[in-house]
Amino acid sequence: MHAPQGDSADVVNLADHAADLIERLRVRQPRVHCITNAVAQNLTANVLLAVGALPSMTIARSEVTAFATRADALLVNLGTFDPERRAAADAAIATIRSAARPWILDPVLIDRSPPRAAYAHTLLAHRPSAIRMNAAEFTELCGEASPQTFAREQRTVVAITGETDLVTDGDRTFRIANGHPLMARVTAMGCAESALVAATLAVQPDPLKAVASALLIFGIAGDIAGETANGPGTFGVHILDALFNLDRATILARAKVTS
Amino acid sequence: MHAPQGDSADVVNLADHAADLIERLRVRQPRVHCITNAVAQNLTANVLLAVGALPSMTIARSEVTAFATRADALLVNLGTFDPERRAAADAAIATIRSAARPWILDPVLIDRSPPRAAYAHTLLAHRPSAIRMNAAEFTELCGEASPQTFAREQRTVVAITGETDLVTDGDRTFRIANGHPLMARVTAMGCAESALVAATLAVQPDPLKAVASALLIFGIAGDIAGETANGPGTFGVHILDALFNLDRATILARAKVTS
Amino acid sequence: MHAPQGDSADVVNLADHAADLIERLRVRQPRVHCITNAVAQNLTANVLLAVGALPSMTIARSEVTAFATRADALLVNLGTFDPERRAAADAAIATIRSAARPWILDPVLIDRSPPRAAYAHTLLAHRPSAIRMNAAEFTELCGEASPQTFAREQRTVVAITGETDLVTDGDRTFRIANGHPLMARVTAMGCAESALVAATLAVQPDPLKAVASALLIFGIAGDIAGETANGPGTFGVHILDALFNLDRATILARAKVTS
Repeated sequence: MHAPQGDSADVVNLADHAADLIERLRVRQPRVHCITNAVAQNLTANVLLAVGALPSMTIARSEVTAFATRADALLVNLGTFDPERRAAADAAIATIRSAARPWILDPVLIDRSPPRAAYAHTLLAHRPSAIRMNAAEFTELCGEASPQTFAREQRTVVAITGETDLVTDGDRTFRIANGHPLMARVTAMGCAESALVAATLAVQPDPLKAVASALLIFGIAGDIAGETANGPGTFGVHILDALFNLDRATILARAKVTS
Repeated sequence: MHAPQGDSADVVNLADHAADLIERLRVRQPRVHCITNAVAQNLTANVLLAVGALPSMTIARSEVTAFATRADALLVNLGTFDPERRAAADAAIATIRSAARPWILDPVLIDRSPPRAAYAHTLLAHRPSAIRMNAAEFTELCGEASPQTFAREQRTVVAITGETDLVTDGDRTFRIANGHPLMARVTAMGCAESALVAATLAVQPDPLKAVASALLIFGIAGDIAGETANGPGTFGVHILDALFNLDRATILARAKVTS
Repeated sequence: MHAPQGDSADVVNLADHAADLIERLRVRQPRVHCITNAVAQNLTANVLLAVGALPSMTIARSEVTAFATRADALLVNLGTFDPERRAAADAAIATIRSAARPWILDPVLIDRSPPRAAYAHTLLAHRPSAIRMNAAEFTELCGEASPQTFAREQRTVVAITGETDLVTDGDRTFRIANGHPLMARVTAMGCAESALVAATLAVQPDPLKAVASALLIFGIAGDIAGETANGPGTFGVHILDALFNLDRATILARAKVTS
């Protein structure tokens, strides 16, 4: 077992927290309700199942509240933007918040669709535990603010993923350099990563640790998949195997985190 | 070729029937219309294609009757519970029944959604040839009744899948111990298995033999996939290969059936 | 590097054009907006990402125009036939045509659904750059006309895929014999191939060359995948890897084209 490739006690701690979390997910099997886009549903469910979580996906008005009531965490992804999903999101968020459980917003492509951006802004009022997005989506959502300022103002955890991921609650910040370029060549990888964040939020009460751990876990699984993949097809398959098999020693050895 | 690992002539017969069926599917290429949930559509179509069946998936009001008219069997899966799918199911069931062709009900998660449970109960009046579900869904649908009693009363074949699958028409019962734990780690495996049941119902007039054969075939494919998989990603890929390559000798050698 | 297995300078040229195109796709990364069926969305996005194109998939009325405005090409696939998709297709086609950008029609299963066939006929008036279909769909769309006559009359490129693909603009015709039988055992392969055509139309102004190159590229990727696949599961994964890794030498060596 190597030392984590970071630079401080915090960083060692994050790898340790992530290792704890991956074990906790397998034991607790949190229920994660996902209101997500049509393209991402299959991979999202498979990522959650690979780590031991139990996904549900319904957007039907007649039953979304029943599912949200029993969910340990909620994902709201804006990648398919239809009235049914917006109604489902509103109902599920109200339910999950009344139970004081966590939810995460993934504002997919709000930089390319003004109606999505407007809706994402209204959802901020419902206090997501975390928001995961890329740099363009962050700029659309937050304008000129720094991630730290925005996270502090909104009392949320901001995760901006890219070559290096940034995770911050305004006070503490982690940068994670794990991951592989093939992630950008398989559809819905980011969407599935957000679902993993929902799962970790369900079993780790500190949202910063939960979000940073999820990104670290996903990035390391990507590193492993990238080593055996021959292209995006095998990469998309191997990352599920890597998530399923991930263990503490591997996380500690591979974590590339700075604070 | 080993003897089947069961205990009676019936069991030998079931492995034989399943071997006949897998060959018949490839020759006859039955058309299977699937009204199924959004997450399961892709895997369901691929399982059907792997065994030689021809899937269709439309739920549009304007054309579902045309597709059902030409289908050899119908699957109704309640995993996405929206008004369009309910209208499509009602129309397709009426069409398939008027042609005296088989249909199977997969009452996904009715134990977690009262509206789904209520709808599943109304569908019983339309006499499904078979119902495939897990233990929790069976309890929701059937209450205290035994599978045998319920099958006899409803004049249907009941299949309850789990570590050991049970298939009964009330008079005859098979238990199938094939399958692999990774099946529970890939989304929509049960949904796809129900589609395979629809395909076998189309080419085997005895519904008990059809349902039990489908579960045996799927379980053996799972066994094979489990032996080469490194996790749920490769498992989901290898089970399609195993279904495509399955032959009589393998079925006879691997069947774990008791009656 | 072998010589292409065709019979003329035109054929050598097509392999060359295809090799140019695969490189151009990776550099230019064209945006392809896809209005396509629910079953095909995931594979379609992954095929586009594998060759370097950037897919979008929204069908929401409130934003489809915004996406089409920024798209370099458009795919309209009729495999899920609902009012939302028809409205989205009408809006997206109007937008793409007003920008003089290419679009391709994939009239999935119009031979089995009269309403789809009627809608496909109305779309011909909007002058698709290309139409990709199988033989049964061609007969439904074109009746007794030859592909050449129909292409000339409609001023479009007609691609009829099957064991040997035919591509014609009425004046010039290519026949492509690449591809593998397992393509018919994986759902949505044809749909994804149409999306690849949209991508090549975006970076090659001669639509005949674009369409024929796309079919050649997809067929060669299928050949390669077929050599390592153990069945349809691994085939569906390996074809994405093959598309991602395809290079000029492989295209020139493997092209089976006649004119």
